[in-house]
Amino acid sequence: MGFHVIQNDITSIYLNIRKETEDICKPLEIEDYVVQPCAEVSPPKWHLAHTTWFFEEFILAKYLDNYERYNKGYSYLFNSYYKSVGNHWLQGQRGHLSRPTVNEIYEYRKYVDFYMCEVLTNMDPVSEIEFLLEVGLNHEQQHQELLLMDIKYIFAMNPCNPAYYQYWPLKVFRSRNQWKNVEGGIYQVGFNGQDFSYDNEKPNHERVILSYSVRQQLITNSEYLEFINDGGYEDFRLWPSDGHDWVKENKIKAPLYWSLNDGEWFEYTLGGLGLVDPNASVCHVSYYEAYAFSKWAGYRLPSEFECELGLDEGPHELWNWTSSHYSPYPGYESFLGSLEEYNEKFMCNQFVLRGGCFGTPSNHYRKTYRNFYRPHQRWMFSGIRIAKDK
Amino acid sequence: MGFHVIQNDITSIYLNIRKETEDICKPLEIEDYVVQPCAEVSPPKWHLAHTTWFFEEFILAKYLDNYERYNKGYSYLFNSYYKSVGNHWLQGQRGHLSRPTVNEIYEYRKYVDFYMCEVLTNMDPVSEIEFLLEVGLNHEQQHQELLLMDIKYIFAMNPCNPAYYQYWPLKVFRSRNQWKNVEGGIYQVGFNGQDFSYDNEKPNHERVILSYSVRQQLITNSEYLEFINDGGYEDFRLWPSDGHDWVKENKIKAPLYWSLNDGEWFEYTLGGLGLVDPNASVCHVSYYEAYAFSKWAGYRLPSEFECELGLDEGPHELWNWTSSHYSPYPGYESFLGSLEEYNEKFMCNQFVLRGGCFGTPSNHYRKTYRNFYRPHQRWMFSGIRIAKDK
Amino acid sequence: MGFHVIQNDITSIYLNIRKETEDICKPLEIEDYVVQPCAEVSPPKWHLAHTTWFFEEFILAKYLDNYERYNKGYSYLFNSYYKSVGNHWLQGQRGHLSRPTVNEIYEYRKYVDFYMCEVLTNMDPVSEIEFLLEVGLNHEQQHQELLLMDIKYIFAMNPCNPAYYQYWPLKVFRSRNQWKNVEGGIYQVGFNGQDFSYDNEKPNHERVILSYSVRQQLITNSEYLEFINDGGYEDFRLWPSDGHDWVKENKIKAPLYWSLNDGEWFEYTLGGLGLVDPNASVCHVSYYEAYAFSKWAGYRLPSEFECELGLDEGPHELWNWTSSHYSPYPGYESFLGSLEEYNEKFMCNQFVLRGGCFGTPSNHYRKTYRNFYRPHQRWMFSGIRIAKDK
Amino acid sequence: MGFHVIQNDITSIYLNIRKETEDICKPLEIEDYVVQPCAEVSPPKWHLAHTTWFFEEFILAKYLDNYERYNKGYSYLFNSYYKSVGNHWLQGQRGHLSRPTVNEIYEYRKYVDFYMCEVLTNMDPVSEIEFLLEVGLNHEQQHQELLLMDIKYIFAMNPCNPAYYQYWPLKVFRSRNQWKNVEGGIYQVGFNGQDFSYDNEKPNHERVILSYSVRQQLITNSEYLEFINDGGYEDFRLWPSDGHDWVKENKIKAPLYWSLNDGEWFEYTLGGLGLVDPNASVCHVSYYEAYAFSKWAGYRLPSEFECELGLDEGPHELWNWTSSHYSPYPGYESFLGSLEEYNEKFMCNQFVLRGGCFGTPSNHYRKTYRNFYRPHQRWMFSGIRIAKDK
Repeated sequence: MGFHVIQNDITSIYLNIRKETEDICKPLEIEDYVVQPCAEVSPPKWHLAHTTWFFEEFILAKYLDNYERYNKGYSYLFNSYYKSVGNHWLQGQRGHLSRPTVNEIYEYRKYVDFYMCEVLTNMDPVSEIEFLLEVGLNHEQQHQELLLMDIKYIFAMNPCNPAYYQYWPLKVFRSRNQWKNVEGGIYQVGFNGQDFSYDNEKPNHERVILSYSVRQQLITNSEYLEFINDGGYEDFRLWPSDGHDWVKENKIKAPLYWSLNDGEWFEYTLGGLGLVDPNASVCHVSYYEAYAFSKWAGYRLPSEFECELGLDEGPHELWNWTSSHYSPYPGYESFLGSLEEYNEKFMCNQFVLRGGCFGTPSNHYRKTYRNFYRPHQRWMFSGIRIAKDK
Repeated sequence: MGFHVIQNDITSIYLNIRKETEDICKPLEIEDYVVQPCAEVSPPKWHLAHTTWFFEEFILAKYLDNYERYNKGYSYLFNSYYKSVGNHWLQGQRGHLSRPTVNEIYEYRKYVDFYMCEVLTNMDPVSEIEFLLEVGLNHEQQHQELLLMDIKYIFAMNPCNPAYYQYWPLKVFRSRNQWKNVEGGIYQVGFNGQDFSYDNEKPNHERVILSYSVRQQLITNSEYLEFINDGGYEDFRLWPSDGHDWVKENKIKAPLYWSLNDGEWFEYTLGGLGLVDPNASVCHVSYYEAYAFSKWAGYRLPSEFECELGLDEGPHELWNWTSSHYSPYPGYESFLGSLEEYNEKFMCNQFVLRGGCFGTPSNHYRKTYRNFYRPHQRWMFSGIRIAKDK
Repeated sequence: MGFHVIQNDITSIYLNIRKETEDICKPLEIEDYVVQPCAEVSPPKWHLAHTTWFFEEFILAKYLDNYERYNKGYSYLFNSYYKSVGNHWLQGQRGHLSRPTVNEIYEYRKYVDFYMCEVLTNMDPVSEIEFLLEVGLNHEQQHQELLLMDIKYIFAMNPCNPAYYQYWPLKVFRSRNQWKNVEGGIYQVGFNGQDFSYDNEKPNHERVILSYSVRQQLITNSEYLEFINDGGYEDFRLWPSDGHDWVKENKIKAPLYWSLNDGEWFEYTLGGLGLVDPNASVCHVSYYEAYAFSKWAGYRLPSEFECELGLDEGPHELWNWTSSHYSPYPGYESFLGSLEEYNEKFMCNQFVLRGGCFGTPSNHYRKTYRNFYRPHQRWMFSGIRIAKDK
Repeated sequence: MGFHVIQNDITSIYLNIRKETEDICKPLEIEDYVVQPCAEVSPPKWHLAHTTWFFEEFILAKYLDNYERYNKGYSYLFNSYYKSVGNHWLQGQRGHLSRPTVNEIYEYRKYVDFYMCEVLTNMDPVSEIEFLLEVGLNHEQQHQELLLMDIKYIFAMNPCNPAYYQYWPLKVFRSRNQWKNVEGGIYQVGFNGQDFSYDNEKPNHERVILSYSVRQQLITNSEYLEFINDGGYEDFRLWPSDGHDWVKENKIKAPLYWSLNDGEWFEYTLGGLGLVDPNASVCHVSYYEAYAFSKWAGYRLPSEFECELGLDEGPHELWNWTSSHYSPYPGYESFLGSLEEYNEKFMCNQFVLRGGCFGTPSNHYRKTYRNFYRPHQRWMFSGIRIAKDK
């Protein structure tokens, strides 16, 4: 575990991760915690409550004798999709709820943290609880990235264009335009260590890999602008059939958060609205756009294994789409109990992203990490990396 | 005008009405101002801003020299549907906006009120401004009722069941079950006075009315429960064709805000969730339900003219549905300028309600007042009154 | 009754009307009988079967001893919406059924006609059966007009542009541009005769009518083209709010069946595709378009009573929209039994058309006849007549 | 090529395959050719025309000097989705077209066949034309299977329950319940021969395969009934998340074409409606159902490569779903020209089926053949085969 440490440290690791979640919300006004501008974007206050519910439901309610839930109704409101622990409020209606208020949710967090500290102090380090704690902390860290995604969406669609953080660094990763060659052969892929990993990264297994090259630098805005200006969105031959239907139905003309104003392209970033920086990496593209761009450029997307073998562990600036549908590895076994709902049931009609992004907590990085989204989604921090046969 | 008074008084009338709007919001938490649980229910903060925009757009921007708008973007955000003054944000997405914050909107109100006082102090009492002021104040008062409707919806659909006002009086209007008979003849209907009325109440004109009786007391919950228990919702013969489709598609089984719990009917009121009071008037029914009930009971709905002639001026507890489609009177002329969009363009596929309700400001009452909604809508304070031929 | 005659004649009237229905289908290929290009347009073979089912269900099954239905499943397939006689196949899926074949349906017609002749031979002329026969024949005649409407839609939307009848007369009714003045007063309206009428035309009752004029000639294509060329479809001020939403969502730019080709307007008529004839009456417009046109032209639509009092009995070339929502008359009583579903349940969110059209059987004409459609519908033979206050 | 033969034979092979298509339609009435009960099911007459258009568009129009198309409008009407050769009529509206008639389409077929014979007589055996001919014939044979699928859907949803062929053999494949074991290792998969294959079957390449067993016999109805009776459709833990949403939204309770009548399960087969045969293979299941069944049974679906290595070449009774998303093989190159639209653009959000079915022409069988559908689709002849790790 990234957290195999003495008990005192466990508690401080727990509290530290919990605090990082709240820190992300520091720049928010109360109103920003509440809204849900589309079904897949949750209100920030929901994230604060849901991550708390996760510890309450899977640890406190099961393992702490005489534990009384903070509020019995919260199990219904803040369960996301775990059907094995009961009904849940509809995802698309999270933004319809003004109550509980933001203050009440912060109180809920304090309450659960108090009892979690009690549990952690007495925890057997190789117990079931320790496993659930690890999952819970990794889960909370995943939601830290989701919080940034959702806050960005909430601010970006608002005509007032509020900045999340005025001094947000438009850090341009100036990696050279370098290709890494990998020789063909039989490789081991998938997780093989002692520390934490999700069930979907296992088992470690062999794959036949053909020789290939993968570009280390992400595609930049200036490269992507060439694609736009060359009519890439109109040329149906570059797109999967579903993808071009999506382009036409939604009148897609550029990455999410781009807008054209008097002939100039603007982009909303967490620092506010500004001109598109040609040297920055293109962000917030769908699988369809990544696919079409790479085909237009004369390359292809790398498979998820080509990324696992051909990229540094990270940190990375942006996730990159891969050509791989999200499927279980041979011999896959899901987490047990309610946590079997964590990954397996989503292995259908999604594509894998690899790498990580600036919003990914640094101890989350490992080469085998698999992120996954629907091919049309693009509010996550997704970029494009290209590959070619050698 | 309800407001034909000396200048000082105009200012205090203006400020008083503005304050009443804010008083309605006193019990709200910040979060309650923000959400929009369905397209027709607007966030309370939107009402606060829109009523303010109305004065800014139609009076200050036109008649106050050198007036600078508080924020140029607000015209786009807080215009409801007046196409003649520009584009507007989509109605169904008002709840997607966390900014401007509630505080900013209260600042906006202060700013506009300041300049309105300046205008009012110097206003020519028979001017165009005076007419716009009257419309603006009546408009704000209409939104006071809308605010109560929308707040109730927001609270009622929340599983936390917050009360708007804990001591909300479940006032039961104990009018006797009395019928008023009206002899057939030719009657004048429509507005004919000097004070304010909307364009849709004019001109005063003649109608042939047959002899009829209209019950003074609204239908009570206990009467409506008989209809439910007798299978009223299932009996297609009682319903308009569209209405029974609506019942089936939406699985309607009772008025809005009613819920069945262990065999007992509960109703959310502004005082919170409680048992249905059999003596209270049934509220939050659609035209379809009012129609079906009255047919089941062996009566019919009154026409809007039968209400105008057969009811007291008010105040009334609840609006009552009439059998009248919402149409212009013979010789109708709409308000001029942008305000032609106030009423005329909605005279299609709506039904008239008459009377008024507890949330209607008392100086709003006049016998010719016409309210109107789609036949399936029921989040307004709508009840049932029955009539019969004599 | 249009059919108060001796028994032999009843039979021949019956058979004649039945034959007229089939005559309308003579120009069709088998394939033309089957398709349903949109939910409101029924396959011609469905009309042939449904009108037959009407006699079987309401007369033969009830009044002919030992009658055996031709096929028990047909009651489910060919009931349109009479819930009191059982379930029915969904309207929008009539075109999904290849069977029964067209030949089988003609056999069904013969079978029912055979037994109907038996009934008619022995019918008591003032019986319940005689009433049902009258309704059934009027019903069949209504479907003759519907057949023409639906056939036209089926042919018009086909890129092959087949003609229904090559020599279809583009008869231009050259009535002079004449206005009829009606003095204000109290008038009797509604049906008051001995012959057949629908329940919705009764009772005869008094209305206050203000002085008005109604133009006798329908609006012509050249007049309507002026409206189009003047930007009528874009000018939101001319439209009901619902209506302009409909224009924008459906990108409406002209009447149904019009198409613009190289700058010239073409119109599909039952004779095939041809240039729009400027002297012909504009046809296939919605209530919204009729409303907007008349407002643009500085006039208004007539009410249904203004038409009843101000137009000839007919025959007329096209139905004209009125400003009247479709509502029951004071003292209205619906047909009894299952036929109560004929009219009453549709009196919601529809507008009345008056007059009649070239496809209306000539003995159907009477001044009190009320046709009704949703305000956006326009596949019926609907035109525009204008009125003004005097 | 399955068709590397002398010229005379080419012509007779061509004519023979064309005739087989028409033979499938022999039992149809004219009406059966026309309807489209859902978007994915095309009218049989469309198949007859589209397969003909394929030869006209890709061979005659390009390679036969002075060829005149039978009807210029047909290119628009009968192009399915090849955007590189122009616009096409919307797939979901194929059933809205009564014209061209069935007879006209048979005339079209004769016309194209006449000119194709002319081309074939003079064809250079290793030419581009010869390749297009092969694709065209394979394409027509694919549509023969589609025709059977679509005819079955058209008949099955009709309450008249017409039989396609009264004596349709309910052939029960009585393969023993036998498992084939495959040892783990590195295997060559994908097409490697001289004859025809689609681009998506290539290139031949290496895969690491773990030891596994795959059951030779398809899952039977009696086995599937156990799953139903055990509550398989209700147990969310067995299903992908999307899959259980699909079950609930569509109220799925059994395979397509099954219906419960008085406690007994009936199944529509091409021979008509009858009791479910417990010994027959379960057919018309979605990927979701196949997945849930195999999980319930304690097994898993085989990957497409496990099928390629573990099943006989065929013929097979039913296609079986695999666990493999439909993706290109490493080094994949699509057909050139317009035919690049044949396969590549569909490699997104679909799953592979392997094996073949009774409706697959026998010369179509080869071990590498890949069929693919959306995970919710089930009107093809799809069954279930199970696998396990060894």
